[in-house]
Amino acid sequence: MALGIIATIEAQPDQIEFVEQTLKDVVPPSRQDEGCEYYTLTRDRENERVFVMVEQWRDREALDAHLASEHYKQMAMTLENRIAQMAVREYDVLT
Amino acid sequence: MALGIIATIEAQPDQIEFVEQTLKDVVPPSRQDEGCEYYTLTRDRENERVFVMVEQWRDREALDAHLASEHYKQMAMTLENRIAQMAVREYDVLT
Repeated sequence: MALGIIATIEAQPDQIEFVEQTLKDVVPPSRQDEGCEYYTLTRDRENERVFVMVEQWRDREALDAHLASEHYKQMAMTLENRIAQMAVREYDVLT
Repeated sequence: MALGIIATIEAQPDQIEFVEQTLKDVVPPSRQDEGCEYYTLTRDRENERVFVMVEQWRDREALDAHLASEHYKQMAMTLENRIAQMAVREYDVLT
C-alpha cells in the first residue's frame, strides 16, 4: 500500500525565506527518488511561517531510501536551527 | 498559482466503513473534474476514524467548479450525519 506523508514545518519568524528556499531545493531531487509518486511544497494560506510538504511514496522502502538520501539529510541539517517545529504524519493511501 | 487542499474528515465511531466508501466513491469523478491535478484519499495510520483527502487544483475557479459539482454535493449530503467533524485547509502550491 502506498504511503502518504504530510510534513508541517514552521519557520522561525526571521527565517521564512531561507526555509522556503531550502524546502524548494529538496523537491526536484526528491521527485527523482525511486518510488516517489507525489512530492509538493505548499504554504498555509493563513500563516506564512507554515509550510506543508505533501508526499506519496510507493511503499515504506521507498520512503526510507529517501530519508537516507544526501539531499534529504542535507536539508534536515540546514533547517536545524531555523525552524520552530516540524510534525510528520503518515497516512495509508486508499485510492 | 495552484491550490492545495487538505480535508480532514473524522467518521462517527459506527460509520467508519460507510464514510470510507462514500469518500472512495467521490475520487474517480473528482479526478475527472477540469483542473484537478491530484486527488487522493488517505487514512491516518494512528486513527482509523480519520480520513484525509489530499487535493491539488489548477486554480480557485477549478476548485469552485468541483465544489458545485453533483458528485461533491451528493457526497457532502450523504456524509452529513455520519461524520464527527471535517476541517478543510487551503495551501498555496509553491513547486
